[in-house]
Amino acid sequence: MSEVYVTRRARLRDRCQAGGSQSALISRPANVRYLAGTAPRGAVLLLGAGEDVLLCPGPLDDRTDGRPDEALRLHTLSRAGGDPAVAAADLAEARGWGSLAVEEHHLTMARHRAIRSVVPRLRLADLGGAVEQLRVIKDEEEISCLRIGAEIADQALGELLESILVGRTERHLALELERRLVDHGADGPAFATSVGAGPNSGRPGHRPTDRRVEEGDLLSVCLGANYRGYRCEIGRTFVIGTSPADWQIELYDLVFAAQRAGRESLAPGAAYRDVDRAARQVLESAGHHEGLPTLTGHGVGLEIDEDPQLAPAAMGKLDACVPVTVEPGVHLPGRGGVRIDDTLVVRPEADGGPELLTITTKELLAL
Amino acid sequence: MSEVYVTRRARLRDRCQAGGSQSALISRPANVRYLAGTAPRGAVLLLGAGEDVLLCPGPLDDRTDGRPDEALRLHTLSRAGGDPAVAAADLAEARGWGSLAVEEHHLTMARHRAIRSVVPRLRLADLGGAVEQLRVIKDEEEISCLRIGAEIADQALGELLESILVGRTERHLALELERRLVDHGADGPAFATSVGAGPNSGRPGHRPTDRRVEEGDLLSVCLGANYRGYRCEIGRTFVIGTSPADWQIELYDLVFAAQRAGRESLAPGAAYRDVDRAARQVLESAGHHEGLPTLTGHGVGLEIDEDPQLAPAAMGKLDACVPVTVEPGVHLPGRGGVRIDDTLVVRPEADGGPELLTITTKELLAL
Repeated sequence: MSEVYVTRRARLRDRCQAGGSQSALISRPANVRYLAGTAPRGAVLLLGAGEDVLLCPGPLDDRTDGRPDEALRLHTLSRAGGDPAVAAADLAEARGWGSLAVEEHHLTMARHRAIRSVVPRLRLADLGGAVEQLRVIKDEEEISCLRIGAEIADQALGELLESILVGRTERHLALELERRLVDHGADGPAFATSVGAGPNSGRPGHRPTDRRVEEGDLLSVCLGANYRGYRCEIGRTFVIGTSPADWQIELYDLVFAAQRAGRESLAPGAAYRDVDRAARQVLESAGHHEGLPTLTGHGVGLEIDEDPQLAPAAMGKLDACVPVTVEPGVHLPGRGGVRIDDTLVVRPEADGGPELLTITTKELLAL
Repeated sequence: MSEVYVTRRARLRDRCQAGGSQSALISRPANVRYLAGTAPRGAVLLLGAGEDVLLCPGPLDDRTDGRPDEALRLHTLSRAGGDPAVAAADLAEARGWGSLAVEEHHLTMARHRAIRSVVPRLRLADLGGAVEQLRVIKDEEEISCLRIGAEIADQALGELLESILVGRTERHLALELERRLVDHGADGPAFATSVGAGPNSGRPGHRPTDRRVEEGDLLSVCLGANYRGYRCEIGRTFVIGTSPADWQIELYDLVFAAQRAGRESLAPGAAYRDVDRAARQVLESAGHHEGLPTLTGHGVGLEIDEDPQLAPAAMGKLDACVPVTVEPGVHLPGRGGVRIDDTLVVRPEADGGPELLTITTKELLAL
């Protein structure tokens, strides 16, 4: 695996040098993990000419996800409470690297000032979202982790559907799903599992409450597995009882049509905003303008919510091998709603089009 | 409840004005919650002369913990993706407040720059840890939330001890504990529950693995409840089977003695470092120098790890009504270890001394 990380760091180093910086300090944990293979708590990564150093506040142990790439030099701070970012800047100056690019969107003012006070002559620049940009397109190893995570989430969801749901609370169903994710091999949930029943159904990011599932409810579930650091997402809405109301069926069919339109528009070269529009206009043309989510999908990977954003004002175009969610929904205040959410990988038409990772059925199931 | 928040904000405003700033921007979520009663995702709080405003990136809903204090003005950003911190600075300038103190230990360089570019003439200062300092001493309402949280954690732990443990994995025990926390009324776990068996026992912050509990193991458990935002912590170590080895009993007695020494040194006016030393020297005098944790306790509240730190180099003294953990431990690589962790509230001698919130027995239980 070492080659993967060496290659990633080489690409970043090229960008950095093209931007005029001789070294780079990576502090955002998901970025550290992407480039180093692991992100021990508080660790930072220093990339310089011919030498990459992972600086950790304390000794590594198996609390840490993953193992550091063997080509890295490890540096453990001797002083408890020291800031590895400051130590990294100190090292950069000692090596004679005259400039250091930092992640200004992650580094706080206070840390930046601490660095500045220790190395007043080092030129500090902004690395911006360079690592986040590298992370957008995934390699097949990364996609394989997402695929396994999606399988785990499908299994956990499938088992839940076989159990009796009426009378159980949203909280309990969410905890049960998280237990099943771990049972099937997840490192943990990818994010806080959301279960919404009745009036809570269809709300994006709903926190489970003590509301019990009742006959006649819509029930929305959104969960994902974290598998080797990679996080996927699946969301489904069900109806409880054998006779769904007309409005429930109509709303479900509408959201399903919107979600399908979004999925079908995924292709290399498609503009982010066009994918959003494809799904959104189905909902809007049925009169739903209020209460639509601000985005209909987003990238997934080492974080559950990463670039790109599929939203009305988003700039940019999809590439092959970019995994994204497509997750339109409608929530009617006081009544509930529907939300359908898949994780897919953008693939060219010649390879069969978008690859669906979350394969649980999207028929309206009456449970 | 509104008075509580109004009073807290008035105290902060006094500090701020004493520091020469006419307004303050609070961005750290736990600080926002402390002063506003709630911290919607991405929200910031602007305190100014005669007007306090909670700026939110989107509409409030019941995904949010708590309700905003009624005395606050609510301001919802109309533009999706806008930064409430930038909007707050804009508002401060429009109101004619010439200076704004920001939380430089929380605000990133990029956000600071965005603020600077929108309000180039506003003087920006550093609020530092002013809100964190206010948060150290708790009122009785806050302590009551911690007390209930501790009761919940005691209950969850007590129930686990009645079940069969041998053959179950660390992961499953941790998930079971978290389910029981929620069963008993917690909003969720206060932090990721730690369960370590055999060689993993006694490691601070150990992440549960697939290791199964075996006869003869030491088993360490550390958990806490989040109750209305307040987070407590309890840790215990048990022995599995009826005949603990001599080294296990000796190590347990030693850590117990260290933990008791730490607890007994808690008093208003006691130096943080003296509490640490009281516990630490028991362990060191028995020859344990390697592998001791960097601190023997810390404050708890809206965050699980807040000021003060009970550590060798910590500066400051305890006050009454400060809740802290006392959690020394020893881990012997390859063999395991012992960790005992309580949450207590510092109280004067006249009130009976430190109040123990986590009351599960600290006798060595053989399970």
